Parts: sequence; structure tokens; C-alpha cells
Amino acid sequence: MKLGGIMPPIATPFQKGEVAFDRLRENFERWNKTGLSGYLVLGSNGEAVYLSEKERLEVIEASRKVIPASKILLVGTGLESTRETIRFTKDAAKGGADVALVVTPSYFKGSMKPQILYDHFLAVAESSPIGILLYNVPQYTGVNMEPELMARLSHHPNIVGMKDSSGNIGQLNEAIHQSKKGFAVFTGSAPVLYPALCVGAVGGILAVANVAPEACVQIQNLFLNGKPEEAKALQNQLTPLAKAVTTKHGIGGLKMAMDLAGYFGGEPRLPLKRPGPEVEAELKKLLNQFHEK
Amino acid sequence: MKLGGIMPPIATPFQKGEVAFDRLRENFERWNKTGLSGYLVLGSNGEAVYLSEKERLEVIEASRKVIPASKILLVGTGLESTRETIRFTKDAAKGGADVALVVTPSYFKGSMKPQILYDHFLAVAESSPIGILLYNVPQYTGVNMEPELMARLSHHPNIVGMKDSSGNIGQLNEAIHQSKKGFAVFTGSAPVLYPALCVGAVGGILAVANVAPEACVQIQNLFLNGKPEEAKALQNQLTPLAKAVTTKHGIGGLKMAMDLAGYFGGEPRLPLKRPGPEVEAELKKLLNQFHEK
Amino acid sequence: MKLGGIMPPIATPFQKGEVAFDRLRENFERWNKTGLSGYLVLGSNGEAVYLSEKERLEVIEASRKVIPASKILLVGTGLESTRETIRFTKDAAKGGADVALVVTPSYFKGSMKPQILYDHFLAVAESSPIGILLYNVPQYTGVNMEPELMARLSHHPNIVGMKDSSGNIGQLNEAIHQSKKGFAVFTGSAPVLYPALCVGAVGGILAVANVAPEACVQIQNLFLNGKPEEAKALQNQLTPLAKAVTTKHGIGGLKMAMDLAGYFGGEPRLPLKRPGPEVEAELKKLLNQFHEK
Amino acid sequence: MKLGGIMPPIATPFQKGEVAFDRLRENFERWNKTGLSGYLVLGSNGEAVYLSEKERLEVIEASRKVIPASKILLVGTGLESTRETIRFTKDAAKGGADVALVVTPSYFKGSMKPQILYDHFLAVAESSPIGILLYNVPQYTGVNMEPELMARLSHHPNIVGMKDSSGNIGQLNEAIHQSKKGFAVFTGSAPVLYPALCVGAVGGILAVANVAPEACVQIQNLFLNGKPEEAKALQNQLTPLAKAVTTKHGIGGLKMAMDLAGYFGGEPRLPLKRPGPEVEAELKKLLNQFHEK
Repeated sequence: MKLGGIMPPIATPFQKGEVAFDRLRENFERWNKTGLSGYLVLGSNGEAVYLSEKERLEVIEASRKVIPASKILLVGTGLESTRETIRFTKDAAKGGADVALVVTPSYFKGSMKPQILYDHFLAVAESSPIGILLYNVPQYTGVNMEPELMARLSHHPNIVGMKDSSGNIGQLNEAIHQSKKGFAVFTGSAPVLYPALCVGAVGGILAVANVAPEACVQIQNLFLNGKPEEAKALQNQLTPLAKAVTTKHGIGGLKMAMDLAGYFGGEPRLPLKRPGPEVEAELKKLLNQFHEK
Repeated sequence: MKLGGIMPPIATPFQKGEVAFDRLRENFERWNKTGLSGYLVLGSNGEAVYLSEKERLEVIEASRKVIPASKILLVGTGLESTRETIRFTKDAAKGGADVALVVTPSYFKGSMKPQILYDHFLAVAESSPIGILLYNVPQYTGVNMEPELMARLSHHPNIVGMKDSSGNIGQLNEAIHQSKKGFAVFTGSAPVLYPALCVGAVGGILAVANVAPEACVQIQNLFLNGKPEEAKALQNQLTPLAKAVTTKHGIGGLKMAMDLAGYFGGEPRLPLKRPGPEVEAELKKLLNQFHEK
Repeated sequence: MKLGGIMPPIATPFQKGEVAFDRLRENFERWNKTGLSGYLVLGSNGEAVYLSEKERLEVIEASRKVIPASKILLVGTGLESTRETIRFTKDAAKGGADVALVVTPSYFKGSMKPQILYDHFLAVAESSPIGILLYNVPQYTGVNMEPELMARLSHHPNIVGMKDSSGNIGQLNEAIHQSKKGFAVFTGSAPVLYPALCVGAVGGILAVANVAPEACVQIQNLFLNGKPEEAKALQNQLTPLAKAVTTKHGIGGLKMAMDLAGYFGGEPRLPLKRPGPEVEAELKKLLNQFHEK
Repeated sequence: MKLGGIMPPIATPFQKGEVAFDRLRENFERWNKTGLSGYLVLGSNGEAVYLSEKERLEVIEASRKVIPASKILLVGTGLESTRETIRFTKDAAKGGADVALVVTPSYFKGSMKPQILYDHFLAVAESSPIGILLYNVPQYTGVNMEPELMARLSHHPNIVGMKDSSGNIGQLNEAIHQSKKGFAVFTGSAPVLYPALCVGAVGGILAVANVAPEACVQIQNLFLNGKPEEAKALQNQLTPLAKAVTTKHGIGGLKMAMDLAGYFGGEPRLPLKRPGPEVEAELKKLLNQFHEK
């Protein structure tokens, strides 16, 4: 299975505070009809940090059941310690994950020097029964992986690619150029999907793909089919929505947009909250240009 | 029991990768003979983020057994979600914690607005069977609590104080001044222990108190006994060691210093590592001026 | 003349866009009756970056005429290049400056390594006919001088002290402790005047001293006369005003407060502006507790 | 004259500390033979902050004499105050500037709100006899112009474009998309020249174009001629050199590279310095792949 294309880091639906597995299945059933190449389960947008370990395993298994073999099941398995990350990556593989997304540990930011990160990722890759995708998201972690480190890690046979959510296209370009051929680099920032494709990204893992999957897929298709101007135009149409469901209104905003787009969004877990009616009006307006229902 | 004085955020000892409960007990037995007023268990320096939930509960119980009733058992119970924080705070109380230290949630930094944090801490305080100490540590979390928020929260009867590790004395001063009378404000930054006491802090929760507890206690005693110049001189003697076992060499450095000071330090859990021999020489030199063995 | 005490970085008055020398003289005549130990002319709050070189020299000379010999005339002379800084420091000395305040060059932030700064300050000190006060203000410059660098520079006979506006009391304490005996360290941040005095600062160069000079002077006097609790209480009364005329409302706010306090403030130069009436109401309320007119 | 293409922000040559006008002319004579579309004089890389006003005017006039009418003479005229910026922009126009590059004022960072910047740029544009190019360079100024502000300003008939040196391609894309049609947007960051062209930039104002002008020009030509893969390959070849002569080794490194590439570089003005021999070896190696002499 070749890594690439558009995947949403799926939101985890809750009802009365508990994971709503039926709503999760229904969301997948709709997404499965789109051109998405796969899904990231237990990513940041999946509120993984708010799930107990038991819930995490249940979400993986429930997802596996409804995701067809033709689509990738990517699972976020990165934890703070090397041993817990290894253990949970193995559990995720047993639960049906195709590939594990491993974020940089970050609690002790000052200690996360390149060699420490290198050794961590190498130990995880050595022990993992499935391929590893590195995950760089400095806006959440306060830790940035330099292109040199990504490139060094790309040579391990079990490290198959990376997701970079920094939005820094210069860095993405250097990481792609310096990495081994075939290393699958995704952007995690929808407002730069088009330029990321221009510098060689194989796809995007994008929060906004929860609500407007076809628009994201189409940007990549237009790009691949030699229609850069149309791809760019669609990118510019998508950017305000993409910013609204991430930096501007957070996961509460993403879930509200999902409800408006015909998916089940619901409430995030506390301390996160759903935004108020003025944000709802803004999101409606931004969604109206995309008729994906 | 009145909150105040010097407490170390105790390091968690590991042997062959597992929590070494005997070494933990031996460390406590030595610390118990000093002027420390209590202990923080499961703080950042306790590598709490690297412990499984089972291990966390065991560490609380093991600590409780060896800590005399005259000393405070403060336990770090803050997790990312409000419900997990409430649940774990209750468990910690059952395990014998006197007070719970609750850090600001921080994964979704951009969403952690003052009102979100206020509601989170209030919900935890309402549900907790024990008093709550707020914990502000922007260098780890990327989230800073403004004095106004601390002051608002100080009026809840179950929020008994705060630990501020920002090192920002202006902010500490404002927090103390604006909070309700009797609100127990600790600094978490040893290089500013002396000025923190000058502006009204009741004590310090200090990594360096793992290795030089008596020096820390003496700074406060000199200050309280009207000997500011001597307090300041001891502060200036302590500062280089305090920086070495935190910002400079991290938890690996702290544990190395503990071994040199006659406690059991050992290895941190991966991805953290113990520094090399040149750091050992530096730490030896810094410790030599304190004869606490 | 011994360096110490409270000095305002005086605002430069403009009328119809031009320096209003009469208003400047009148302001000095009122300030001269207070306990201020001297004045900083051409500091940040003096909008020095908005003055032509001709205006700068005129402001120095006009100030000298009205400042009695018993009060220090400190002049901001730091420019980006070493040669221009040397030249202007000599001109300021000719114009009557007692001491020159030299800010870290900062345009090429990434190049301002400790050794570059060391060589710059040394070259200026070597050539200057008057003593040099180092000036560290990272919030404006994006460059921070570490205590080690300040300490190294303190050993030059013509470098007589420093002003640190970082507000970082730990750093201030280390700078004082590591510097040569007699090195005159001022804080430039009014909200930490009291703790700065506690760790050994000789005084403060404080924007709020433009509008409430006596309150600032009294904080130091209370501290020196062994009344720390009263000093702290006055500090806490002053802090909200001090923040309002700096970080909150900028130089436009400072000038508005000066008008309300009976000095001439007037308009800052564009692009800076004077804030609106709601800020005026806030400033009035904050000033009302100080009856210095 | 249509704005676009590659322009170097030319380094200002010094000999024995004074501007070396002969060397300047010789550099221009070589650059004039390349495909560069014009020059930025008195930019950051021109050490404009180290030049006296007299020197600045002389550099403009000397440049005008040797720059053919077919190439653009862009001059950096932004100063801190609105009135000085207006005055100097007029002087630059008299001296022969075709377009003025106006940087965001930045000394009082906290006060540089969008409306303040809007009013500043509008006042300059209203008074300027020549077109204005906005200049955003947050790494030097600590101030960032949001795309919304750039877009608002783009509607003034005398504001003809902008240079964005943030390296943030998402922001560049939004600025281009939101601005009026024909607004000439340049990147100021060579490592993202290729992606900047992909999202619609009309060219680059690039430090590395001082030493490898033809490589920069060729990247754009390849892009415009429908050879994206070759453009990208040349970009990746250029990036390490581009980083070496800016972020890594500063203006001293740029001038050293100029000497190695057959131009006159010489010494920067103090406090800047030329790097040592190990940087020279690194630069030689990076330059060797480009045979532009």
C-alpha cells in the first residue's frame, strides 16, 4: 500500500461524555464514499490526549471494522516515554493499524535535542511491527524537528515518512530533498497544501478534510493532472475554512463545522468547549461554498 | 496543616527500568531528617509523564507510608482532560495525598483561554476531597496563567494556593497581592527563592531541594529571622547548582547530582538520558560547597 | 557623583510636531523639586528614535541648562554601529551628559553574539570621555545580555553600571552578584522595583517616574529605612499605573498621564498616537491615589 | 516599468571604514551583465542602519549613475517616524529611486497595531512622488504584517507591491490572493523562491543574488518556461548557499562570499565582523557548484 493522498485526522465523537461508536461508524461510512486515501485515528484532532488507554484501543478497533482494506488506517501512537510509545504502537498494530504516527516527545522541551529524538524514533522503529510516520507539530509541542534529523531518520527501513504540521514550506522542501527517495512526506497544514504539493509532498493529513474531504482531494487531483491554476484557486477558496476549524476556533469549531456539514461532530471533552452562535454563522458561510453533502 | 516551607519535587528512582521502591524509601528516610516541610510526588521532576497510571498510584502509596504526618504530601494530579484530572485527584486523595497540585492543561495551547482554565480548575476544586494547589509552569506547558486568573481562583475555598515556576517575580508579586489573604503562593524556581520570599511567597517547591535541602531551608530561615544579607549570600551560592540540575542538565543532571549527594538518583526513563562525565565533574564542584551528607 | 536613586526616562514634549523646549523646561522645573536623583534624556520613552540628530543635540543642551549639578544627566547614546555610537557619545558628553546609556545594537539580532556585544561596548567605553551605563531591553531589541556578559564588562573602569529592563529578577540578581563591587545596577521595570532593591539594585530608571516621581522615590526610601512592608504596599499601589503607562498604553498613554498629572505630555510623534477617552478615564483613576501635584 | 524578477539587496562596500564608491560601481558593472531585473539599495543587507544620512544619499546617487534605465532602482527608505520616512522617501526620489521600499516601523513593537501601520503606510504613500513597496521582515523587526493589512493597503494607487521576508508561504499566498490584481509581491527569502513563484510571487529580492545572480534568475526562468522539476532542482542546489549568506553567517558571511565569487565584499561595519577561515572554506565549497564568474 503506497502512502499518499488526503487523510483527515478524524475527530472522536462523544455523546453524554462517552465515545459514541455508532456516530463514529456513520461518519466513516460517509467518508468512505469520498476520495480520501485513508484516516488518521487518535491524532491531535481526535482528542487523543483526552482518551483513556482503554478508549484508545476501542477507537482503533471500531475504526478498523469500518475502514475498507483499500484505505490506510494511520494511528497516533506517540507518548512521552520511549517504552510506553513502543508498547502502545504494538497494541495499535494488533488493533489493526497499518502505520503508526509518532509525535516528538515534548514535555521536557529543553532536553529534546536532536540526538535524543533520533534515538527515541529509532528505538520505536526497531520495535514496531508496522511502519512509522514521524510527526512534527511545533505549535502543540514546542519542539521542532530540523530537516537534517528527518533526513537521517528517513534511512531506517521501518520509518516510512513524516507529517509536518509546522506550515513551514522551506523546511518541508528541505526535508523532502534531503530524505531518501520514496520517503512519504505529508503536510499537516491545509492552508499550504498546494505549495506543499509543489515542493513534492505526497499528500496532506488535514483537519479540514473532516468537513470538506472532496475539496482537499480535488486540490491534489488538479495539481497532479497539470492544472495548477485551478488547484491554486480551490486552495484559496478552502484556506479560510481550514483556518477557522483549526487555529481560529479549535476542535470545538471543527466539531461544529462537522455537524453543519452533515457529519456528527458534537461536543469536545472538557476543558475544550464548543464555540457560540456567532462562530456557527461564520462556519455556515464558509461551508456554503462547498456542496459535499 | 499550614502550607509553606521548602519541598522538593522528588525524583522517581528507577532500577532496570522499573520504579525502585526501596530506593525511594531510603531517599525519604534521609530527607525526613532535614527541615523540609513536605514533598511533591508526581511532579515534572518525578517524571510523572513517564509513569503508567498503576505506577503513579503505587508511588503515592509508597510515599505516604514513609512520610510522617508532620510533613505535607503534595501530589501532582493534573491531566489534560477535566474528567481524568478529577478522577485521578480522587484516587490520589484515597492514596493519602494531603493536597493536589494541578497543572494547567496545555496540549491545545491556543484554546487555553483564561475562562477555559478558570472553569477547569473550578470543576476540579468542586469535586476534589482535598485542597488544590494551582500549578503554572509556562516553560513546559507554553501556557501562562495571568495574576488576574490566579486571583479569581484564589477565592474558591478548596483552592488553597499555587506554585508558579515562571521565575517571573513581577507576576508572582501581583498574584500574591491580588489573591485572597492566606492564599499560599510558592515559587517553583530556585534561582529566585530569595526575591520570591521578599514579595511574600510562603516557600518554594524546588528541584534543587532534592540534593541540597538544608541550603534551601536555610535561605528561608535566614530571611524569616531578619538576616536578609545572609539569605541573599546563600541564594547566590545556591543559584549555579540550581540552574545545573534544571535548565542546564535536566532530570538526568538532577539524578546524577542526587547520586553525588548521597541519595539514589539513577537513570531517568528514555528518551531522557544521564549526562556524561564532564557534567559529573561540574556537578561535583557545585555540590562540594554544600556539606549535607 | 554616586549613581543611584530614581530617574525618569523623560518624555520629549512636542507641539505642532516640533520639540517644545519651553514645555521641556517647565517639566524639569517641577521634577527638580522632587526627590529624583537625575534624568535619562533620549531614552526609549523620549522617542529618541523619532528625533533627528540635530534635535537630539538640542534636547541634551536644553536639558543640561535646567538640570542642577546635584542631579545626574544620563543620555541615551546607543546607535546601531560602533562608530556612530562613539561619535554621538562624544557629542553628548560635549553637550553636558554626565553618563551615557548605551543600548545593545539589535538590528541584526542573529549576529549579536556575546563576543560581538562585548567588543562593541568595550570600544565605546574606551573612546568615551564619560562613564558608560549598559542598557539591556530585550522587549524592544530582541537581544538579551546574559549576566556573564554584564559581569565581564563591569570590570572596565569606564563602564559604571547597567540598566536592565527585562523585568527578570533572577537575571538581575546574578548580574549584580557576578559584577565587580560598586557596579551600579538599575532596574528599568517599575513593577519589580521593590524586588530589584531586595537583590541589590541601586535604583530604578522608570517611565512611571515621569508622572509619579515621589511614589517611586518613596518606595526606595522606605526600603532603605528598613520598612519593607510599607515599601511593598506602595509598590503594589504603583504597579497598575506603571503597567498602564508602558506595556498597556505605550508612550501615548504615558504622555496622556503626564497631562493628567500636571506635566506637559502632549502628542507623541507619528506613527504613535494618543489613546482615546476610555484610557484617559482609566489613567485618571490610577493617578488619583497619588497626590503629587 | 513592470515590477518583477530577481533583485539583490546589494551589500554596501567599505574600505578603511568608508563607503568604497569605486568598488560599488565595479560590482554594478558585473551585475548589469546578468539577468537581474533591478537592485535594492539601502536594504538590510546594505547595512543601511550603519550609514549616516549623507552616506545614504551618496549611495543612491552613485548607484543611479551606473544602473541602466532598463533596470529598477529600488531604495530602502523606511525609518521609525512617519515624518522622517516621508522626508527621506522624497530625497530618495530626487536621488533617482524608481520605487521606495518601506519597512514597518518597529522600535515600539507593542504599539505597532494594524491600524497604526495602515495609517503610517498611507501617509507615506500619499506624500511619495514614487511608488511604494511594503516591506515585512519580522525576523529583524519583531513585527508581522498580516495578509489582511497588506490587502487593504494594496488598494492605494501608490502602493505597488510588497516584499515579504518572513519565509511563510501560507501568508504570502493569502497576501497575493487577497490583494488587488497586479499587486507585485516579492519574496525576500531565497530558500522559498520556488514555492513563492508557485503561489504567484512576481520575483525575489534575495541576498544570495549578490553572489549567484544567474542561478536565482534561472530558477524563475525555468519556472516560467514550464520546467518545474528543473526549477526545483536548482532551488535545492541553491538553498544551502542562501542560508549560509543570511541566517547562518550574516552580512559578514555574505561579503566574504562576494569576495569569493569575484565581487568586492570586504568588511562589514562594526559591530558586525567577517567570519573566520572555516566559514570561508564552507562558502567556497557551496559556491563552487555555481560558475558565474
